[in-house]
Amino acid sequence: MKSKLNLYFFFIVLLFLLTNCAVPTKSDPLPSWNNGITKQSIIDFVNEATDSANPNFVSLDERIAVFDNDGTLWTEQPIYFQIMFVIDRVKEMAKDHPEWKEKQPYKAVLENDIKTLFSSEKWISELFVITHTGMSTAEFYKIGHEWLKKAKHPKFNRPLTDMVFQPMLELMKYLRQNGFKTYIVSGGGQTFIRLFAEQVYGIPPEKIIGTLFEAEFKIVDGKPEIYRLPKVFLFNDKGVKAVAIEKFIGRIPVMAFGNSDGDLQMLQYTQSGKGKRFMALVHHTDSTREYAYDRNSRIGQLNKAWDEAVSNNWTLIDMKNDWKVIYPFELDQ
Amino acid sequence: MKSKLNLYFFFIVLLFLLTNCAVPTKSDPLPSWNNGITKQSIIDFVNEATDSANPNFVSLDERIAVFDNDGTLWTEQPIYFQIMFVIDRVKEMAKDHPEWKEKQPYKAVLENDIKTLFSSEKWISELFVITHTGMSTAEFYKIGHEWLKKAKHPKFNRPLTDMVFQPMLELMKYLRQNGFKTYIVSGGGQTFIRLFAEQVYGIPPEKIIGTLFEAEFKIVDGKPEIYRLPKVFLFNDKGVKAVAIEKFIGRIPVMAFGNSDGDLQMLQYTQSGKGKRFMALVHHTDSTREYAYDRNSRIGQLNKAWDEAVSNNWTLIDMKNDWKVIYPFELDQ
Repeated sequence: MKSKLNLYFFFIVLLFLLTNCAVPTKSDPLPSWNNGITKQSIIDFVNEATDSANPNFVSLDERIAVFDNDGTLWTEQPIYFQIMFVIDRVKEMAKDHPEWKEKQPYKAVLENDIKTLFSSEKWISELFVITHTGMSTAEFYKIGHEWLKKAKHPKFNRPLTDMVFQPMLELMKYLRQNGFKTYIVSGGGQTFIRLFAEQVYGIPPEKIIGTLFEAEFKIVDGKPEIYRLPKVFLFNDKGVKAVAIEKFIGRIPVMAFGNSDGDLQMLQYTQSGKGKRFMALVHHTDSTREYAYDRNSRIGQLNKAWDEAVSNNWTLIDMKNDWKVIYPFELDQ
Repeated sequence: MKSKLNLYFFFIVLLFLLTNCAVPTKSDPLPSWNNGITKQSIIDFVNEATDSANPNFVSLDERIAVFDNDGTLWTEQPIYFQIMFVIDRVKEMAKDHPEWKEKQPYKAVLENDIKTLFSSEKWISELFVITHTGMSTAEFYKIGHEWLKKAKHPKFNRPLTDMVFQPMLELMKYLRQNGFKTYIVSGGGQTFIRLFAEQVYGIPPEKIIGTLFEAEFKIVDGKPEIYRLPKVFLFNDKGVKAVAIEKFIGRIPVMAFGNSDGDLQMLQYTQSGKGKRFMALVHHTDSTREYAYDRNSRIGQLNKAWDEAVSNNWTLIDMKNDWKVIYPFELDQ
């Protein structure tokens, strides 16, 4: 009888182990990253942050990682994709505005005269306002989704939502699996990013911090709506990114990823927290598979932040050498 | 042998059930609520929202409940607690400002002349600015925590963080246990509420939406900080509450709890979402255990929102009759 009881006991223990224990998996959490210092430093940071016996352990509440969007999570060349939206939208709206044919900056858009268009920041702002406001948020989402379905990248002739960086998708998933909250902190429009971020990045609307327009609560025909007003409320770039993190998150992140001078203050703010922190910049070094640009680029200039990265020992992610593939579609080829 | 195998099988199934199945507990999730229509309507809503076979099922992502703070989660009489902070802080700061003795609105504060002080909204704003800005967020937290340790409620002679509503604490916990995200959406200052919300309500900083001051990122002596500027950035009341929900959360809540006309638009916005929603107002009806006030109150006026509640069939939480206890300390007595 004793041996039978032992057998019961053995079965029960075995079953308990099988059903209740997470077996550590040896599979690579970042398969699209080449083995090397960059990849290893990320894995080391996460291993330490999640090991309660390690002096660099980070409590679950504090595991916050922030990501710039344009140039960090998806391509930002030859122009920010949101500007493609602006241009397409102006052309669409021009049907109801015959006077735009002779009026700048609309004329430049309608004549595809990008050089003239980009000669004035005020013009760009005006076009953002006219295409992003004067409607409810629900209406904006509808317009945006319609556009995203059709828009293609000029170099790759693929949907813009295909132009996301596979290594960064893996990184965000890996971090979330390790209890990190992943936030986007972008100079791009919050509502614009919300169009695709949940589906493409797995980041829900409440974790998207971006440039905001003023808005008001209105009741139209008995139905409440959030109506978008023609004024920027928060332009989420440079120091404002740090301020926005304080307002939206209320804790200093432990990891921050950017790619340009607009991300410098976000990385400085992240570094200012107590304990070990991880700051990284995506360096666009691959003119074949994506684009190569840095110190002198009109879009995504990486100059001051690069110098700061070097003197602070932040991680520079070398796209060409650190990433096995750039885009998810390369995995299917 | 067959019967032994059956016995093994029985053991294994039993163990599996014991270790893997959440046994439904019969314990009351809202023990400080009297049984009745109000309590039952909350429980019914949650049961339906969490039952995937029910037509009123709400997906995990959409389970968002928003709560006003003053008068909804804690007492707001005889004056908002944040105004107690303003008054105490002005008295403290007056040591360095001898000229305040003869200068309004400081004079009124120093002479405890509350009537004169409240005669001007502009004065109140000025005092909020002088006590809440001109310092880093870290400094504000330090000042606020010191104050909270000492401040007492004038009627109950208890720490202000004792003046929270036990039934609402139970409600928020119950909702979180059922997968709801609980947010505070308050006219009070975001940073002020963050002083105690995590400890007292279990609500982390990223889920506190409140009135915001402008701020800037600065590096002082090599150390980055968020510096609070003397200008209101977002006054989170009435329609702005709905706008702020859109910006901070990006989804329409399924449950909303308020207590005054300042919460009306938040409840209307919540109601505007598809499917079943739950809107409720705390009605202060207990002059003995707390306070009784509504249509004509200077603080926490409940007038228009009450009418809307009646015509829209929103829940009115009758403090006197729906709540067994008001404050957590009553449980110890």
